[in-house]
Amino acid sequence: MENDKGKYPIGIFDSGVGGLTVLKEIEKLMPKEDIIYLGDTARVPYGSKSKETIIRFSTENILFLLKKKVKIVVIACNTSSSLALDYLRPMFSIPIVGVIEAGVRKAIRFSKSLRIGVIGTRATIFSSSYQKALIKMDNRVVVYSKACPLFVPLVEEGITKGRIAEMIVRMYLKEFKGKIDTLILGCTHYPLLKDVIAGYLKDVYLVDSAREIASYIYNLLEEKNLLNKDKRLPQKEFYVTDDPIGFEKLARIFLKRKIPNPKKINV
Amino acid sequence: MENDKGKYPIGIFDSGVGGLTVLKEIEKLMPKEDIIYLGDTARVPYGSKSKETIIRFSTENILFLLKKKVKIVVIACNTSSSLALDYLRPMFSIPIVGVIEAGVRKAIRFSKSLRIGVIGTRATIFSSSYQKALIKMDNRVVVYSKACPLFVPLVEEGITKGRIAEMIVRMYLKEFKGKIDTLILGCTHYPLLKDVIAGYLKDVYLVDSAREIASYIYNLLEEKNLLNKDKRLPQKEFYVTDDPIGFEKLARIFLKRKIPNPKKINV
Repeated sequence: MENDKGKYPIGIFDSGVGGLTVLKEIEKLMPKEDIIYLGDTARVPYGSKSKETIIRFSTENILFLLKKKVKIVVIACNTSSSLALDYLRPMFSIPIVGVIEAGVRKAIRFSKSLRIGVIGTRATIFSSSYQKALIKMDNRVVVYSKACPLFVPLVEEGITKGRIAEMIVRMYLKEFKGKIDTLILGCTHYPLLKDVIAGYLKDVYLVDSAREIASYIYNLLEEKNLLNKDKRLPQKEFYVTDDPIGFEKLARIFLKRKIPNPKKINV
Repeated sequence: MENDKGKYPIGIFDSGVGGLTVLKEIEKLMPKEDIIYLGDTARVPYGSKSKETIIRFSTENILFLLKKKVKIVVIACNTSSSLALDYLRPMFSIPIVGVIEAGVRKAIRFSKSLRIGVIGTRATIFSSSYQKALIKMDNRVVVYSKACPLFVPLVEEGITKGRIAEMIVRMYLKEFKGKIDTLILGCTHYPLLKDVIAGYLKDVYLVDSAREIASYIYNLLEEKNLLNKDKRLPQKEFYVTDDPIGFEKLARIFLKRKIPNPKKINV
């Protein structure tokens, strides 16, 4: 018997545009699902802010998605997943999932040396969420972590290759050289620097959490009998808290296609 | 006859910590004044956001300062001065001043060739506020402008000298080479990159708006008989919308002294 709730949309929120990498992977794996995406572009970035503030913003984002009757909330933002998920998950009746666990599982499955690196925003790294999740899943893991606050503005300036990108990548990642065999890209923007990072850290396997979270969600929805089995064209809605035009432009960099007009809301 | 309102504090707000450069200059010139500083650190930065959102945030900041009975509001943030000041000034009964005009006046007074450069955040530059103000004050001025979105994160990472800072300065400023004799640093963070900028743009005079706005405010308060003539120790209060600890740390970079405990508020 199909669950009626299966027809409800998947809700995704991110501090801004980066979560579109997660949306893209969900679309690939679950093409029949309706999706509601909220980018908190008025208050982006979260990565330099405090736990209390990130929890407050995340709560407001979830309440907005709940009003839209989503069947699951995906926190596409690594910072919010790191700092707010544990606090928020027990508060709501529908599943709330973050990007940390899926990336961690993949890294442990792949790493031979169990020496794993993690990079992310300041808030993500200082929260130690990735570090704790890695150790919890396998206590033999040795974790190397580093905050890379310049990567997001670099990507948003379109500087994803060339001398400046290379120097900044080297500045942050030189301490990983020869120490790890797997690196978790703990921020949705970082996959856009993948080539430069791979060029510098040769032979290190790069884990992109966006990719991993999609299959995690698929399994969860299937298990709960919440997959959408309808044949009609899936609906996609985009909401932002700042100017929709800026978001639309950045969205094209991330998705390589045009999105339906984003609507501006105040959360 | 002294005006009673003269004893009220000066209110300053900024999107974050950068406005402390303005506070510092005001303290130097008006050491008897009480000051209330508000840094909207939960929603920083403003420089990449839309006019409508910047006006909304700025209005909320001003309303907070008004509750604290300030005699003047200083918008220390160049982005907010560029996008919100003209809209907000007529709404309130006390003077609201921004950083644009003072910097513009200084640049025109100094420049011999009247070929003047302006750098700032994306929002500041795309608003054309500096450009318009320069032309309005002297229609012979030729303005060269450039948004430099990486300068703020660079300063906040403490990268204010060395190879990476030099390359990024060159990337943004190479089009100014040989064209201007004066450059307005249209963002409170940029004076921290002054040495690198001066090293690249030799013989170009750099205008720091923070310095200019202080004497503008002094003249305005004197004219309106609003200067504080009390002899007691001036009070300084700091408010932030995010974690006070992060603010305190950055404040030491900007002010080179410890500040009284900032209080967290929600605007």
